[in-house]
Amino acid sequence: MRIDGLQYCKWSNKIFQQMADGRLDCVHVTIAYHENFREMVGVIESWNLMFEQFSHRIVHASSGDDVRKAKTEGKTAVIFGFQNPSPIEDDIGLVEVVHRLGVRFMQLSYNNQSLLATGCYEELDPGITRMGREVIREMNRVGLVVDMSHSAERSTLEAIDISQRPIAITHANPGSWHPAKRNKSKDVLRALGKSGGMLGFSMYPHHLRNGNNCTIEDFCQMIADTAELMGIDHIGLGSDLCQDQPDTIVEWMRSGRWTKKIDFGEGSKDQPGFPTQPNWFSDNRHFDNIEDGLVRHGFHNDEVEKIMGGNWLRFFDQNFGRHEELS
Amino acid sequence: MRIDGLQYCKWSNKIFQQMADGRLDCVHVTIAYHENFREMVGVIESWNLMFEQFSHRIVHASSGDDVRKAKTEGKTAVIFGFQNPSPIEDDIGLVEVVHRLGVRFMQLSYNNQSLLATGCYEELDPGITRMGREVIREMNRVGLVVDMSHSAERSTLEAIDISQRPIAITHANPGSWHPAKRNKSKDVLRALGKSGGMLGFSMYPHHLRNGNNCTIEDFCQMIADTAELMGIDHIGLGSDLCQDQPDTIVEWMRSGRWTKKIDFGEGSKDQPGFPTQPNWFSDNRHFDNIEDGLVRHGFHNDEVEKIMGGNWLRFFDQNFGRHEELS
Repeated sequence: MRIDGLQYCKWSNKIFQQMADGRLDCVHVTIAYHENFREMVGVIESWNLMFEQFSHRIVHASSGDDVRKAKTEGKTAVIFGFQNPSPIEDDIGLVEVVHRLGVRFMQLSYNNQSLLATGCYEELDPGITRMGREVIREMNRVGLVVDMSHSAERSTLEAIDISQRPIAITHANPGSWHPAKRNKSKDVLRALGKSGGMLGFSMYPHHLRNGNNCTIEDFCQMIADTAELMGIDHIGLGSDLCQDQPDTIVEWMRSGRWTKKIDFGEGSKDQPGFPTQPNWFSDNRHFDNIEDGLVRHGFHNDEVEKIMGGNWLRFFDQNFGRHEELS
Repeated sequence: MRIDGLQYCKWSNKIFQQMADGRLDCVHVTIAYHENFREMVGVIESWNLMFEQFSHRIVHASSGDDVRKAKTEGKTAVIFGFQNPSPIEDDIGLVEVVHRLGVRFMQLSYNNQSLLATGCYEELDPGITRMGREVIREMNRVGLVVDMSHSAERSTLEAIDISQRPIAITHANPGSWHPAKRNKSKDVLRALGKSGGMLGFSMYPHHLRNGNNCTIEDFCQMIADTAELMGIDHIGLGSDLCQDQPDTIVEWMRSGRWTKKIDFGEGSKDQPGFPTQPNWFSDNRHFDNIEDGLVRHGFHNDEVEKIMGGNWLRFFDQNFGRHEELS
């Protein structure tokens, strides 16, 4: 089972074909950054058109069993997620509605302060807000996974603590390996593993040691070190692949409608656009490079299987359904 | 199995209790008249709150099997529907989205001309529109049932003809029995039965001969005559019960935002509000009166079972799921 914990590509037949070539069984895709509810529904509509047009390649999935069925049929399962809670607006009732629409991950914040939590680019992090506590409880009830990939330290630790079900950091790496604002502290990763959560390793150059010159060996060593810290059952992939997107998209991701200036986020004035991928993961055809790297590093077969997708699948089984006790 | 093909009450614990007392297994409820998409989602949110609060009494259903499960658990299954296509706005992509949200019936028009079809209060009826043809095809594909209860004659006949799956008139009676604008011609009813569609008999006073003085015997004679015309497998109940609603609601239903005046619809200046129900069906506790009336009239047990809900259940089984051949 091969599962990628996050991508945001400019979707096309070419990319769906590359997913098939790379034997990718499932991908969690971002369908909203700063979109409000109605705008996000428009994105689902465009996905529905793709599910019709490319029905031989991709299929919408909202459970582990949907993923298994897709694999059997030789398709890539697509799971929806938000990188920001903008689509639920200020309305807790929309949590259940977006879950019904098939959304299975929601970040509580994206770089900035949200109504729910603090983002990793804010100066100060006062932690999960009053509404944030309510929304986490509701997400727990319906089976919408809390994702803290772009959130700040205290908010993340509090989310792990407050959430009655395991949470995810779908796409990030350890800050001890590469000190980016988006990468996570040992405290966070330890707490995440201990609570049954999941980390997806990012292959986005800004999250990699030496950027796109990072070697596959160094990447696999980082995975091994994180497995020591968190446990082999709590790690997977979350490539953060943003293939074929124009740079206007990274501007939308970073600046949305919250500023009239350009916010460079992880980039800079000199490097405002999407960075070039490392040569061992330039697109979906390259998952073999990761798997081979893990084998070469000395991981056992069952460990490789867990990292490549087995752990995500178990996590989906346990966390995408309703929690009847919380109802 | 007892199924009511349409109600729009002011929902409360009292009414849910009355449904239990009347052994009602399933009810199709209206969740939108003139609401746009986002407003309709707000109505679903309020239903979700009721499903939580009254989880021992009611449960959301989107398939025949959901209805069977509800009956087993002693609950009333609630099926969502629209009396107007307003919630899909001018966006065909919203058909699949509202189906995913659990909506299973959509009227193509409500009294007036819509983007899709003509309503029964317009002077002229040019039939199904260009967008209407596209939307019917999409509704057929995803399993959203076309309902023509408030539509005009030509549009209704065309909808029956164009739709590749059977349609429904969830709440109306034969015009030959009581000549109201909302009641249906023999041509319509014959075509409806022939195409495998369903008629739900209305107990709304304006649709009854002699209004709320209509006798249960006369009502059952009308059912028998319609069974002759359409076939015993194509008829059921669709009470149109609007219990406990304030008269501001009937104003919203009739006038929405399309006029600044008050449109009296089936009412009049002298009788602008909701009419009083006939004494044999004043609320959900009275389904026994219908069943007893049918038995007294001479229907066989299996016929009574079909009319009281068996036919609707079969119709749900056949028409709420995807039509793979149309995909």
